[in-house]
Amino acid sequence: MFRYAITIEYDGTNFYGWQKQPDQRTVQGDIEQAIERFSGEKVAINAAGRTDSGVHARGQVAHFDLSKEWDSFRIQEALNYHLRPNEIAVINANAVPQDFEARFSAKKRYYEYIISNRRAPAVLEKNRVWHVPIRLDENTMQQAANLVIGKHDFTTFRSVECQSKSPIKTIDSFEVRRELDHIVINAKALSFLHHQIRSLVGSLKLVGAGKWSVKDFKSALEAKSRQRCGTQAPAAGLYLTKVDY
Amino acid sequence: MFRYAITIEYDGTNFYGWQKQPDQRTVQGDIEQAIERFSGEKVAINAAGRTDSGVHARGQVAHFDLSKEWDSFRIQEALNYHLRPNEIAVINANAVPQDFEARFSAKKRYYEYIISNRRAPAVLEKNRVWHVPIRLDENTMQQAANLVIGKHDFTTFRSVECQSKSPIKTIDSFEVRRELDHIVINAKALSFLHHQIRSLVGSLKLVGAGKWSVKDFKSALEAKSRQRCGTQAPAAGLYLTKVDY
Repeated sequence: MFRYAITIEYDGTNFYGWQKQPDQRTVQGDIEQAIERFSGEKVAINAAGRTDSGVHARGQVAHFDLSKEWDSFRIQEALNYHLRPNEIAVINANAVPQDFEARFSAKKRYYEYIISNRRAPAVLEKNRVWHVPIRLDENTMQQAANLVIGKHDFTTFRSVECQSKSPIKTIDSFEVRRELDHIVINAKALSFLHHQIRSLVGSLKLVGAGKWSVKDFKSALEAKSRQRCGTQAPAAGLYLTKVDY
Repeated sequence: MFRYAITIEYDGTNFYGWQKQPDQRTVQGDIEQAIERFSGEKVAINAAGRTDSGVHARGQVAHFDLSKEWDSFRIQEALNYHLRPNEIAVINANAVPQDFEARFSAKKRYYEYIISNRRAPAVLEKNRVWHVPIRLDENTMQQAANLVIGKHDFTTFRSVECQSKSPIKTIDSFEVRRELDHIVINAKALSFLHHQIRSLVGSLKLVGAGKWSVKDFKSALEAKSRQRCGTQAPAAGLYLTKVDY
């Protein structure tokens, strides 16, 4: 068998998330179908991050095995051909060693969250951002974000449906910056819990709007209780941007 | 009468351009309808640039008169309410003097053209860029672009349907730069001819792809003949970004 890794961009809007599900259009399902169409082989692909419905990717990574050896550029071209009209694009393809695992070999995952922070609705970025019409203070948001750096129990900030055995995760960085009318948030960690970034961003938004103090945020984190989470930010603003191996 | 100027952003994809036309959805038509819905007044609005079908705006400017005096922030809010679901957004509104004309008072118009220059299709920027899969050389494109700065006869680079009396225009700047996988082109002038930027960008693309030399571009400009224009760049990559008064 020959193993291939592909780097993928997608617009998550019209997908029921990454993971294949019966009777739903998923990113995994569309890509597996494209692989079958070009290679004639039915494969199961594995991804670094199983993104939710509406979440986008600029640098998702997945791997799969084929019994025939292919030129990796040809794989990229063939998949993009079979993925038309392109809501998913393969932006890179590589032959990788047999022990490469898109999920388990990943050393760092990078996510970006984009808030359109202006009065008028987001038109050119529809389905690409969270539109928050009230002015947010990125400095207090960053102060609160600093509290999640390092190893913490994130029970407050994970979905009740999260299947991870432990709520303890280590966040390497969580940066909040303003770029004109946008608040851009970048998070980096080995791995994240289900809904962790959207839960954190939703709560940081309350801090930025002045509805929560930084102390309120700290107390929510320390409570280790899902009931203490603020609003959960919508999927449309979230991007899986990069995976390091 | 009270005169108001609004700054407008729109996604041109689903519009038959700016200008009102019978039985077509146009940006002008949608905004006039929204004005009537909030104010009860039937007005005709005038814009700085009559963009074509599929062309976007981040900073289009238009003016109109109302017999009643309104708070300008209230105009902005009311229009955005009546423009839902927002393919058009009013990002600013101001009361202006009676002699202000969005079209004739404009001193400079700024357009941006975005090319996605990578092998894989543009997914997250669908309908927002021109996807050119072959590598373009931004440096030779800039060399050719430099030839259009100043006052020239642009017969080669205007639509045969252009209604301007003269093909002579003065371009202040025409800048080509690469930003990772994008070629971003910025043009500035008092005014442009019909299809002038898309004709120039389409021809510059031939230069960037090595199909035309800079000399070929110069000779096309000097020929003053529409037959000598290269391909015309598609509408989706073009944005009216700003108007100076």
